[in-house]
Amino acid sequence: MADYIAKAQAHRVKRDAAIPREYLVDLSALGVPELPEESLPLPYSKAEPYHPEPTTIYPRDNVTSIPSKVLSAEDVTITETPIDKLLDLLATAKLSSVRCTEAFLRRAVLAQQLTNCATDFFPDLAMSRAKECDDYLAKNGKPMGLLHGLPVSLKDQFHIKGTVATMGYVAWINKAAKQNSVITDVMLKAGAVLYVRTSIPQSLMRCETHNHIYGRTVSPFNRSFTPGGSSGGEGALVGMHGSPLGLGTDIGGSVRVPSAFNGLWGMRPSMHRVPYEGAANSFLGQESVSSVIGPLTHSLEGVVTFMRAVLAERPWEMDPILVSMPFNEDAYALKNLQLKAGSVEPAEVFSGDGKAQLCFAIEWDDCIIHPHPPITRALREVKEKLIAAGHKVIDWVPYDHLRCYDIIGRIYSADGGEDIKRTCEEGGEPVMYNLMSDGKEPTHLSTYESWQLNQEKSKYRKEYLDYWQNTTSQTGTGRPVDAIIAPVSNWASCKHDLNDHVSYTTQWNLLDRPCVVFPVDFVDPKKDPKTALEQPYTALPGDLDALYWNRYDPEDWAGMPINLQVVGKRLQDEELLGLARVIRDAGAALH
Amino acid sequence: MADYIAKAQAHRVKRDAAIPREYLVDLSALGVPELPEESLPLPYSKAEPYHPEPTTIYPRDNVTSIPSKVLSAEDVTITETPIDKLLDLLATAKLSSVRCTEAFLRRAVLAQQLTNCATDFFPDLAMSRAKECDDYLAKNGKPMGLLHGLPVSLKDQFHIKGTVATMGYVAWINKAAKQNSVITDVMLKAGAVLYVRTSIPQSLMRCETHNHIYGRTVSPFNRSFTPGGSSGGEGALVGMHGSPLGLGTDIGGSVRVPSAFNGLWGMRPSMHRVPYEGAANSFLGQESVSSVIGPLTHSLEGVVTFMRAVLAERPWEMDPILVSMPFNEDAYALKNLQLKAGSVEPAEVFSGDGKAQLCFAIEWDDCIIHPHPPITRALREVKEKLIAAGHKVIDWVPYDHLRCYDIIGRIYSADGGEDIKRTCEEGGEPVMYNLMSDGKEPTHLSTYESWQLNQEKSKYRKEYLDYWQNTTSQTGTGRPVDAIIAPVSNWASCKHDLNDHVSYTTQWNLLDRPCVVFPVDFVDPKKDPKTALEQPYTALPGDLDALYWNRYDPEDWAGMPINLQVVGKRLQDEELLGLARVIRDAGAALH
Repeated sequence: MADYIAKAQAHRVKRDAAIPREYLVDLSALGVPELPEESLPLPYSKAEPYHPEPTTIYPRDNVTSIPSKVLSAEDVTITETPIDKLLDLLATAKLSSVRCTEAFLRRAVLAQQLTNCATDFFPDLAMSRAKECDDYLAKNGKPMGLLHGLPVSLKDQFHIKGTVATMGYVAWINKAAKQNSVITDVMLKAGAVLYVRTSIPQSLMRCETHNHIYGRTVSPFNRSFTPGGSSGGEGALVGMHGSPLGLGTDIGGSVRVPSAFNGLWGMRPSMHRVPYEGAANSFLGQESVSSVIGPLTHSLEGVVTFMRAVLAERPWEMDPILVSMPFNEDAYALKNLQLKAGSVEPAEVFSGDGKAQLCFAIEWDDCIIHPHPPITRALREVKEKLIAAGHKVIDWVPYDHLRCYDIIGRIYSADGGEDIKRTCEEGGEPVMYNLMSDGKEPTHLSTYESWQLNQEKSKYRKEYLDYWQNTTSQTGTGRPVDAIIAPVSNWASCKHDLNDHVSYTTQWNLLDRPCVVFPVDFVDPKKDPKTALEQPYTALPGDLDALYWNRYDPEDWAGMPINLQVVGKRLQDEELLGLARVIRDAGAALH
Repeated sequence: MADYIAKAQAHRVKRDAAIPREYLVDLSALGVPELPEESLPLPYSKAEPYHPEPTTIYPRDNVTSIPSKVLSAEDVTITETPIDKLLDLLATAKLSSVRCTEAFLRRAVLAQQLTNCATDFFPDLAMSRAKECDDYLAKNGKPMGLLHGLPVSLKDQFHIKGTVATMGYVAWINKAAKQNSVITDVMLKAGAVLYVRTSIPQSLMRCETHNHIYGRTVSPFNRSFTPGGSSGGEGALVGMHGSPLGLGTDIGGSVRVPSAFNGLWGMRPSMHRVPYEGAANSFLGQESVSSVIGPLTHSLEGVVTFMRAVLAERPWEMDPILVSMPFNEDAYALKNLQLKAGSVEPAEVFSGDGKAQLCFAIEWDDCIIHPHPPITRALREVKEKLIAAGHKVIDWVPYDHLRCYDIIGRIYSADGGEDIKRTCEEGGEPVMYNLMSDGKEPTHLSTYESWQLNQEKSKYRKEYLDYWQNTTSQTGTGRPVDAIIAPVSNWASCKHDLNDHVSYTTQWNLLDRPCVVFPVDFVDPKKDPKTALEQPYTALPGDLDALYWNRYDPEDWAGMPINLQVVGKRLQDEELLGLARVIRDAGAALH
């Protein structure tokens, strides 16, 4: 057995030992199959760019209803209470943080048994912290902060002093954190209880979730499907209601894809609003397209609460790269949209009574890969509901998204994979997959070459901004399009190892546009029959559009969540949340 | 004659031909020596890191009083009217833009004759634009924007469609701009009149002003001294009152040094508030430390007007990298300082009646190079006046500024000078100076290495932020230090070719802190005698501290402007302007 396999397995055993025994459930008694263990190294191959299905067979079951069968009614009630209500109960001592934390810990353990989503549990830390919150409230008569007493789960990138975040790298197994990440401190200041950390893919640079230490995380909606990634552990955990609020990161879709694949709300905020300082990451020092921390949760209120809570702590006094913008309540109320672009006159079309006319654009596809029929149906339904609510909806004609996809791919791999190779080498483990979707070895650019690449990026950003601004002539509102509604992925998840295409998400990372993911429905074979793809796009090599399209099988996909994203203006995160509220209030989101 | 010399000389002749003949003054009749022409290439040598004085002898005269001798009284009055008053006259049609532009054009031509500050004149464009402004006002009864009818001068980096900005590169001599830079459009939207472009050093990467095309720009206060750089053409022009408002750029001091050396107000705003999109620059695509556009002008009001005017045009709808923050009037009024950091409680010490106690820190020196006696006297006088005005003043203990100086030097040269070498090669001209102050060839980093360098930068930024925040314990205001008052340079200008040391400015570029430069006094041999340097710093090789110190000669420096800078919090540009107003109102600024 290779040395790294022994190390990885030993560390996984350690993770398992951290799970409170008393919360473990006997799944076999329920007739629920255990997840198989795949042999290491996991079966990726550089020689095979478009991976076959894994040889290991995963159960094809939906396990989202198991908790209601094995947990107490009270535990189910607590863990399924909407986050705003839950925070209210906690802040008014109607529910103790100790009781709440116990319920989520228990459900998180079950989620772990069913989906293999966690990398560590902190039951003792969590229970003593929950007690601290309860005592604080009893003593001071007021909550600690906006997240008082709330259990919050963290992706395996965020440091808690004295604990180990491996980020799936064998090399980091014995490296205990010397201090908290800033986001950890911010969560604690806001009153959160930390209790579990969740799984990721090796290096984070993939929208699935699997690594040599913790193995593979599966979707709770169909365990032979991927929960997405890289924040896939969060996706599965929150999807199972094992956490009311999970923190992920997104450099190419890593919050949005697992939010979408697990039927959640999620957000990729604009860069430099949420503090990343002191978190583990791949490509530290790569500043051309930055990874961003964002929430995965069950409601718009969860997303808004996260942003309000973070910004209330003045994180720019802790992280020097942040923009010092407090949460803009006026923008969330869409009061800023009363101004025409470039003017201080109120837009005549905006009535300001909550029934204002907005103009949304629908991105039906990105001219690279067609979305599967359920995604297109969701776009159609959202469009109809927005029109019914009195808003204008136009088509979004993608502006050379292929160029964007090419540029961002070269930015990710500008170091020739050096960062990943070094860390894998240090741990003695193989690199699991290549950064290049075509399987070729990426080129290591010189600094001068990387500056030229940045210029390509900047040029594209400028052209896209002008393109967006120029939509004013089509909107009838006196403003450019307020937001774009777009697919998050070309499909509603897929079988393990097949989730290779990410142009629907990377588009907005390169442009640094904030995005909010929202649930629309579930796949229904009756509503979402397989149709013929009339004209496949051929821009990518390997007939990928046809290949991906042909994988669709309504029966296989039945019951998978269908989500979309709404894309706003850079740094106008609050306005985007206000627009997401309009979508939700129009009945276009599932909840 | 080398081909590039012929090309350069031909282009200089073209510049000279653009000067309106009727504005030229016969200097010899006044007994004012003409500036000598230096032979090309200018006498830099890579083998000689600490350059000797140039062999060419420059007149040692102060020419700032010449305009009042040769211009009409009305021209002098117009060109010396404070900018806020001037804008008021223009906006109310009490002074026409045509008349105002003519006066500044005339004075700019004289400044050009005396200091060689300009690279191009646009008299026809300017006069027709001025007329357009006057007509607009007559027709609409309101001004075009906040800069209505005001002549504004531009550094030779900003494009005007159809004209040539060479940035001092022979290679760019025939490249006419296809479109305006965004800042050009923003100035025009605000109502400005563009009439002259100003000189720079080859590549911009030096705090002096000289290139093979236009030669050397000199200080109007002593023509054997440098006006600083890289926005040195602006410094000399505005110093001569040949422009009420000049636009420069700053990646290491290039707005602040010429502001300081010419007795001006100037500002390096935080990155990403003023649009750089579409301007010429060195190192395009280098995003680790960005160059920033800032104003050079005669008063605080000039700086504030520039920032208000730019931000009123919503430049983030034209430049995708900008932060969408309108001008924050509350912050300029220092209302935000009523809040304690991290709290929503009013700080008890802040009375809110304009007599609030603030806490400034004085950076006496940076532990790398000691400032000359006039700079230290200025710091002392400012300190006394702030204390007299009721504020608290503490000492700023520099936090490892040498590390910062080292990091930023490696960032500037991360491409091994490739960008500069290529552009010089394209024009067939020699590289005038080496990026490395030690004369060694810089190393071209790989992308992976440049990411490691970025991590060094980020780590330093984080440590510095924590260090600043931790001053709360010393201020007595419940807040960290509100601003640092610091030298802009170790001296009040110097003889040509000797201005090599820039750690007092680069410090704040790496940290992205906004800085406002303000005038304090002029060198007076009686007040500023030469003293012994007790303990020279030895951190830099070559006994530089002693070398620079020993160059000081009170008689040589007599009459040179002494300026300082005030350094604020990142992206809190308006708050910093408010603090600069407090300094000015305390009588600590000359005007």
